[in-house]
Amino acid sequence: MATVKLWTDEEVAASPRVKAVFDDIRTTRNSDFVNNFWRALANQPDVLERTWTSIKQVMVQPGALDPLTKELIYIAASTINGCSYCVHSHTAAARAKGMTEQQYAELIAVVGMAAETNTLATALQIPVDPEFMV
Amino acid sequence: MATVKLWTDEEVAASPRVKAVFDDIRTTRNSDFVNNFWRALANQPDVLERTWTSIKQVMVQPGALDPLTKELIYIAASTINGCSYCVHSHTAAARAKGMTEQQYAELIAVVGMAAETNTLATALQIPVDPEFMV
Amino acid sequence: MATVKLWTDEEVAASPRVKAVFDDIRTTRNSDFVNNFWRALANQPDVLERTWTSIKQVMVQPGALDPLTKELIYIAASTINGCSYCVHSHTAAARAKGMTEQQYAELIAVVGMAAETNTLATALQIPVDPEFMV
Amino acid sequence: MATVKLWTDEEVAASPRVKAVFDDIRTTRNSDFVNNFWRALANQPDVLERTWTSIKQVMVQPGALDPLTKELIYIAASTINGCSYCVHSHTAAARAKGMTEQQYAELIAVVGMAAETNTLATALQIPVDPEFMV
Amino acid sequence: MATVKLWTDEEVAASPRVKAVFDDIRTTRNSDFVNNFWRALANQPDVLERTWTSIKQVMVQPGALDPLTKELIYIAASTINGCSYCVHSHTAAARAKGMTEQQYAELIAVVGMAAETNTLATALQIPVDPEFMV
Amino acid sequence: MATVKLWTDEEVAASPRVKAVFDDIRTTRNSDFVNNFWRALANQPDVLERTWTSIKQVMVQPGALDPLTKELIYIAASTINGCSYCVHSHTAAARAKGMTEQQYAELIAVVGMAAETNTLATALQIPVDPEFMV
Repeated sequence: MATVKLWTDEEVAASPRVKAVFDDIRTTRNSDFVNNFWRALANQPDVLERTWTSIKQVMVQPGALDPLTKELIYIAASTINGCSYCVHSHTAAARAKGMTEQQYAELIAVVGMAAETNTLATALQIPVDPEFMV
Repeated sequence: MATVKLWTDEEVAASPRVKAVFDDIRTTRNSDFVNNFWRALANQPDVLERTWTSIKQVMVQPGALDPLTKELIYIAASTINGCSYCVHSHTAAARAKGMTEQQYAELIAVVGMAAETNTLATALQIPVDPEFMV
Repeated sequence: MATVKLWTDEEVAASPRVKAVFDDIRTTRNSDFVNNFWRALANQPDVLERTWTSIKQVMVQPGALDPLTKELIYIAASTINGCSYCVHSHTAAARAKGMTEQQYAELIAVVGMAAETNTLATALQIPVDPEFMV
Repeated sequence: MATVKLWTDEEVAASPRVKAVFDDIRTTRNSDFVNNFWRALANQPDVLERTWTSIKQVMVQPGALDPLTKELIYIAASTINGCSYCVHSHTAAARAKGMTEQQYAELIAVVGMAAETNTLATALQIPVDPEFMV
Repeated sequence: MATVKLWTDEEVAASPRVKAVFDDIRTTRNSDFVNNFWRALANQPDVLERTWTSIKQVMVQPGALDPLTKELIYIAASTINGCSYCVHSHTAAARAKGMTEQQYAELIAVVGMAAETNTLATALQIPVDPEFMV
Repeated sequence: MATVKLWTDEEVAASPRVKAVFDDIRTTRNSDFVNNFWRALANQPDVLERTWTSIKQVMVQPGALDPLTKELIYIAASTINGCSYCVHSHTAAARAKGMTEQQYAELIAVVGMAAETNTLATALQIPVDPEFMV
């Protein structure tokens, strides 16, 4: 259960500032569905506007990494950060962007393997090889 | 400074079991350089063999994700896990596999953005939308 | 569901050692409500006594930081530690101590922003400026 | 050692986009010192601009929490996130904003205490009390 | 709710590769019960086989640490990693291997205490004593 | 470099409150060596006294877990918490208490394996089996 109110579409409609962001989310994603993350941030218009602007710049704007690759990275980060909501939402987003079950299986394997070798390196306090320095 | 001895090539040569793994690392990577991670694991032949076998299966064996994408995911995971050694080694590995600076910039942006939204979602304890359930 | 029994008031009443701590919690907080955290620790009287003594010293005893500031810090730490229970309990505690929704919104923004810049600094392995050394 | 180049003032001067951010950092902080975090982000003008804009909105813009309280929260988050650079830079920033050693001692105590109770609650998987639900 | 299908015994029976692992789990543990972790990994036979092989080598194969001590360490790691599923499954496993409530209470105390002192050491950025270097 | 002064023996001698704790550390451990952790906490006598009292109760006082097992758990927690100082100090402490290199190798393997399976369980959001509920 959230620590704040999740805004309904009626409440959103009554706040021009929040409505503007929700409208842009719907237009950008070409979908009427707006997930709970944004309905929670609606309580904080500053954070809502800033976060959506950043997400658009980082995740939507075309760049050197394709949208699916970015979602895979997002799933990896969300998993290690232990954010259940984010694991669910970005796994769904990746599937919507075409992630196959085989790609998903390999993503999971890489993230799990990284967790193991990261832990081994930290446990053994292995010094960085000079070859890895810029 | 490591909590265990880092094996020199001379010490590796004296242990057939460790040498077999190091030989395979060199052959697989087509390089004479073996980084400190493996020199630390050499103290634990069981872990050394198992970890290398897994890394080969997960990171080297051809699959649905290309090698560079896997390295980007590895950097993301290593960053969130806070493993300094792993951030250095996998950033170097990604560059060796062709990561451009623009791709790297976008990777960093996604990982940072994920950390922020993950934290917001956890702070607000946002419930998972039914739409995200399998 | 907890991994241990949560003690009812009847069970607490039957154990003088646990009862003494619960009585002190009620007196200190001037409330009859004792939350599940303490009902779980009741299985381990040593840990119960030590934890309550520490919490009183750190959170209740007057000092250089006011009680609300301490709760804000506690929410920040609980969020990053990914403790759902603690996020809920300390957000409720902060509100009980007068946290306004605007203060809460700013707290969330700072914690999220910190997560992003922390991650960027770790990803890029930025060296500490000499100016920051004591 | 950073995974990217840290920009010198000369290099900054040669890039109008980066220079504009650095100029604003210097003006906003009323100090000529620009720390390594921004010199590393300079490689990624998009991230540099977005991060500085966000930091200004979150940390500098007057609000319901005073600047020192925000820094205390930032130290707490940076500590739990395990970001050595950020612990150093924000502890220095908090001292520059007037944090006394007694306040610092209490901050440390709260963050440590939170880590302990967060861990106990996670270990015991304590269910959230209905009283804490919004 | 899982992001992937949890395999029923009927589905397992239809896949010789998955069935072989499930049969070995049942034989090794001398129990018909196979927990959800393996039913989720069944979607990814490579990961399933590799993970079970590793778990057998690390957790089942006789060594210098007895099975209960290994479970205690697993609970500690799972707690700090914030994995609710793993805390539940390994606490149950430890009890099945004979963990007494007093041992459990002390385990919890150590993990909580470690979290506090780890956080204090990170907050204060304490340098490693030369005496601790190998 | 620490964010606070590390107290020398001369400075400790000048503060009766700090000296009392240092004397007890030396007596309890039967060694003249006092590591930097305590020299940093000396700036905060409240935290110093409380932390040492807790450490004695949790780690020194005889109980159901032997001292070496507690140190193994401490290493596991410190590794996952990413505390470099703590990994070094508790690995040294475990060796001083008789940890063999084979035991250490197995500890490392368990912690690494736990990190991998914890991550897999979190990535796949596996629901807790009813069989694991108390």
